[in-house]
Amino acid sequence: MSDPLVIFTPSGKRGHFPKGTPVLTAARQLGVDLDSVCGGRGICSKCQVMPGYGEFSKHGVTVAGNALSEWNAVEQRYKDKRGLIDGRRLGCQATVQGDVVIDVPPESQVHKQVVRKAASSRPIVMDPATRLYYVEVAEPDMHEPSGDLERLADALRDQWDIGAIHADLHVLRKLQPVLRKGAWRVTVALHQGHQDTQHKVIDIWPGYYDGGLYGLAIDLGSTTVAAHLCDLQDGSVKASSGIMNPQIRFGEDLMSRVSYAMMNPGGDLEMTAAVRAAINDLVRVLTDEAQVDPTLIVEAVFVCNPVMHHLLLGIDPVELGQAPFALATSGALSLDARDMDIDTVNPSARTYLLPCIAGHVGADAAAVALSEAPDKSDDLVLVVDVGTNAEILLGNKDKVLACSSPTGPAFEGAQISSGQRAAPGAIERVEIDPVTKTPRFRVIGSDLWSDDPGFSEATATTGVTGICGSGIIEAVAEMRLAGLLDASGLIGSAAQTGTERCIADGRTHAYVLHDGRDEGGPLISVTQGDIRAIQLAKSALYAGARLLMDEIDVDKVDRVVLAGAFGAHISPKHAMVLGMIPDAALDKVTSAGNAAGHGARMALCNRSDRAAIEATVGQIEKIETAIEPKFQEHFVNANAIPHATDPFPHLPELPKVSFNTGGDAQGGRRRRRRA
Amino acid sequence: MSDPLVIFTPSGKRGHFPKGTPVLTAARQLGVDLDSVCGGRGICSKCQVMPGYGEFSKHGVTVAGNALSEWNAVEQRYKDKRGLIDGRRLGCQATVQGDVVIDVPPESQVHKQVVRKAASSRPIVMDPATRLYYVEVAEPDMHEPSGDLERLADALRDQWDIGAIHADLHVLRKLQPVLRKGAWRVTVALHQGHQDTQHKVIDIWPGYYDGGLYGLAIDLGSTTVAAHLCDLQDGSVKASSGIMNPQIRFGEDLMSRVSYAMMNPGGDLEMTAAVRAAINDLVRVLTDEAQVDPTLIVEAVFVCNPVMHHLLLGIDPVELGQAPFALATSGALSLDARDMDIDTVNPSARTYLLPCIAGHVGADAAAVALSEAPDKSDDLVLVVDVGTNAEILLGNKDKVLACSSPTGPAFEGAQISSGQRAAPGAIERVEIDPVTKTPRFRVIGSDLWSDDPGFSEATATTGVTGICGSGIIEAVAEMRLAGLLDASGLIGSAAQTGTERCIADGRTHAYVLHDGRDEGGPLISVTQGDIRAIQLAKSALYAGARLLMDEIDVDKVDRVVLAGAFGAHISPKHAMVLGMIPDAALDKVTSAGNAAGHGARMALCNRSDRAAIEATVGQIEKIETAIEPKFQEHFVNANAIPHATDPFPHLPELPKVSFNTGGDAQGGRRRRRRA
Repeated sequence: MSDPLVIFTPSGKRGHFPKGTPVLTAARQLGVDLDSVCGGRGICSKCQVMPGYGEFSKHGVTVAGNALSEWNAVEQRYKDKRGLIDGRRLGCQATVQGDVVIDVPPESQVHKQVVRKAASSRPIVMDPATRLYYVEVAEPDMHEPSGDLERLADALRDQWDIGAIHADLHVLRKLQPVLRKGAWRVTVALHQGHQDTQHKVIDIWPGYYDGGLYGLAIDLGSTTVAAHLCDLQDGSVKASSGIMNPQIRFGEDLMSRVSYAMMNPGGDLEMTAAVRAAINDLVRVLTDEAQVDPTLIVEAVFVCNPVMHHLLLGIDPVELGQAPFALATSGALSLDARDMDIDTVNPSARTYLLPCIAGHVGADAAAVALSEAPDKSDDLVLVVDVGTNAEILLGNKDKVLACSSPTGPAFEGAQISSGQRAAPGAIERVEIDPVTKTPRFRVIGSDLWSDDPGFSEATATTGVTGICGSGIIEAVAEMRLAGLLDASGLIGSAAQTGTERCIADGRTHAYVLHDGRDEGGPLISVTQGDIRAIQLAKSALYAGARLLMDEIDVDKVDRVVLAGAFGAHISPKHAMVLGMIPDAALDKVTSAGNAAGHGARMALCNRSDRAAIEATVGQIEKIETAIEPKFQEHFVNANAIPHATDPFPHLPELPKVSFNTGGDAQGGRRRRRRA
Repeated sequence: MSDPLVIFTPSGKRGHFPKGTPVLTAARQLGVDLDSVCGGRGICSKCQVMPGYGEFSKHGVTVAGNALSEWNAVEQRYKDKRGLIDGRRLGCQATVQGDVVIDVPPESQVHKQVVRKAASSRPIVMDPATRLYYVEVAEPDMHEPSGDLERLADALRDQWDIGAIHADLHVLRKLQPVLRKGAWRVTVALHQGHQDTQHKVIDIWPGYYDGGLYGLAIDLGSTTVAAHLCDLQDGSVKASSGIMNPQIRFGEDLMSRVSYAMMNPGGDLEMTAAVRAAINDLVRVLTDEAQVDPTLIVEAVFVCNPVMHHLLLGIDPVELGQAPFALATSGALSLDARDMDIDTVNPSARTYLLPCIAGHVGADAAAVALSEAPDKSDDLVLVVDVGTNAEILLGNKDKVLACSSPTGPAFEGAQISSGQRAAPGAIERVEIDPVTKTPRFRVIGSDLWSDDPGFSEATATTGVTGICGSGIIEAVAEMRLAGLLDASGLIGSAAQTGTERCIADGRTHAYVLHDGRDEGGPLISVTQGDIRAIQLAKSALYAGARLLMDEIDVDKVDRVVLAGAFGAHISPKHAMVLGMIPDAALDKVTSAGNAAGHGARMALCNRSDRAAIEATVGQIEKIETAIEPKFQEHFVNANAIPHATDPFPHLPELPKVSFNTGGDAQGGRRRRRRA
């Protein structure tokens, strides 16, 4: 055995190969992750490698300068035309001549890792369902008649070891002209989902094609439809955009849309048509922005709550509006984009919908589970995706539980007297001086605090228009920290609190955050009604989390992950002062940002992740809050700020104030319970 | 082992079963072919059996009168409501109590055999891809949330042992209301093609549904689109109809349609739209006639030549118009009907296109091969499907060859001076008295011969309008038998033949079959030009057959099967006098009728037959006549009537006349060759 030893890094895979073996061939035989679209013909340059020379004591070899064949004309031509980093070789051109250590740089790996944003989220590792393959197809022969598709299949089998293929009529229609235009050399985009036994030909180009393949990761929310246009070869995001969900005209929240479908025959189909049109609009926006040919979009992944899931598919969501909240289908779905009337993408494009967890816990929650992977956590982690409904996951690698809790829209700034959506001009951060009781704040669109010099100028165009969801949480928590609010949620009077900012508001009080009336703006205050709305919402959220903790029989969690666009803006301290979440060390409360969107990107870029989340969802234990008596109990007990029963050792001591002046001030649920 | 012995006939399957075992259960465990849609719930009555009593010496058992449980209330109720043949029992109700012999009547077998028409054709044995299953589905449970589709899948697995299922959005949309309307009891139509790993839910009905499932066997010809509407449970034909192929307006024959596509950008799509619209029209005709709900049509099978195949699929047929005659795809195709714009059937209906054999030998020839099964024949059989092109198969179980031969339209009555399509008034049978040289004939629409009393009255409405394809063949052959025509194909003059019916026609002669001019009708004659056209056609057909015989290296065949609507009307004797086909004993020349249509029905009713013909087509050796030099040689040698080289010992001796009076009379190809 005097065959040279070839060692690949970073994988460490090694083997002996006869002199003259191309590096790409050696890599393939060892199962080293080295990309190639042209199959070793010196066309695509995807197989770039970096040989090392000298002594590699760790590997026990010394690599001579002539360990690889000499730089050749194909490599020189490529370097002249497109450039090649010094020292790099094309794996299909360089052949093994002696012992050698060869590094495969990340960009030459198919299964490369994409840079991740949130620390808690799992990385995206490329393993796309759709990939490009360059092939040389045999010409037709009258003596051995066979179809062009069959000869393409033969070429893919012989040159790429790919089994059975099939194709839509769209592709069959262009197959013959493209094969002839390319002189029997073509590049095909083949799709194989994680459950497919065959490859599907999505598209075909004459000759060698390297113009990219793209996919959409779409987060279909009740209010907003947001999408990333992703490169399916390197995972990069080429454009991101969001538009309002046009279904809002049929009802602001999900249940009013379900009602619309119930009350109006065909109403579900109106909403289906609206959201599909919006998706097509959004695709146009993204492809315009990224200057990408829409027919290069070959896949789309959707995450959404169950009602949006059904409305997207054209299924009447009526069953989701009433117990037992039965889904038409809970499993993941692989469909043709055209069956969903998505006609702005490649006509053969495929879509994938993540599985729903339960009637109230949708594919968006599954995407959060994929991104944050509680099922792979050693710690017991609580993942909360805060929106109109809060999706809550609790677990570790032994067990994961999920539920949904009806927090209502208060956390999104709705049903708040000065509330508004998160938009420029909305107060998003609040601090209240505990001594002077004077607030300062920041608005979306400016980095300045309201007491910083130049704030007025910086916010002149937007003004200060209201409070968004994260702002109201900070405001209420800061009011509690400043002693303006007692544990029961009552706002004190000016006399009780010592600040004229606590003004009378009917029989209760309100705290003035900002008075813009002199400049023609609004008076922005937090009213007793606002406090009650936030109390209802946070009690629901806490009660859901607490219910899952009961099921696992724990009193505390190791970490908390706040997911969702809103979760990204919540300050952990304020969330805990409010009692939204169970007590945890502040450094153990992190934001995962748009975890559902990240999960959608994972499923878009990696088909193994699709299989993984389907298996995970099958293992998740679902808890239905609506039928758990303990949910009501936790809900009531969680009304205080923070709530009455559980200790919060990680919080600073809160002012021991009490403004309880009689039953009148008690609003919301507790008053109703007494009646 | 005192468990009773149960013997099923006609299968002969037997086994011992504990007392109390339902007959249906015993049948299933033994793999006896006993139908059931309701799964043994006493609803569908598909499992009717006929127990025998007394001594069965052949089986070695004596069956006592109480060998089965007593007649029960379910059986009585069924008998009262729907009737039951005396002695019959429901297999799911009657339980085994002692040794018993149980006959499964044909109508209780799933894999029942359908009565066949042509003796040569293979029988249709039911094994449809789409079948009905009645199931009881678990209700949704908030504690164990799962989708309705997933619980339906569970029920199918538990109650029918059926694996993974999937469903179109059409079905998902109706799933929830149907499940609730049926109180969680539903009947589903499941489709599983021979290559499918999953079952597809095609449709769903509340409760027990037995309103039938239907399929279409469509023979898409260049001139006519013909279809059978078939019951997918018993294979019976509920309606048959045909309409003109509207593509005729783009060109009478295939090559002119290919030219149209080449000359007119988008012309192929015009033709695709035309034929798809025609198919939808035809489906409406069939469902109206049979009074069948179109949404109960769940499958369609297509057979057609390669050009029609491509035009149906929306593929430009340009490559089929020029060597090397490359098909876009030659394999069988399973598609959604809606992808072919067939919107008159169930929205989830599936279609199946048989494979094409070669660029000139289409799925219609494959269907003939399926029907006539040369690959299963001990004899060497020649199968000829006569049309504008003749498809020719030759072989036995060792080897099958196929080719296509360009006979042109003469056999269909086109390019014949008095020719017409087969329609009422067309002469279809001809006899010429060899002594008096007087003809008699029959026309389509009447059973009388022209010299029978009452012929004029019987044909008064249609008249005698021309000669159809089978008529011209008989006329030419009879002229040869009567000595009016010599072996070279020359028509003699009145002087040479002794009949005034041989009239001068320019520099050649014509034979008058019928002179209707006194009644305002046409003069119907066979001209020298007609003879030349038939000679060209028959030479092409014979040369194709001869080419295949050369490949197998034989001088004679054991049997000849004439297929096609036209083949059904050709008289074997006349075909042989003409030299259309090689010599064979007359009783070995049979007609298979519409073998392509029969093959389509087989593929419709039996998915194993689909797998079988795909395998067979893969084994068939294709011969391209256009590039075989011997084809030209055979073609020239076959010009004589019958042809010059091969002996026809099975024919009566033909008159040894010769009218060769000089070069002028030689028309067509031979004249051109001399020039």
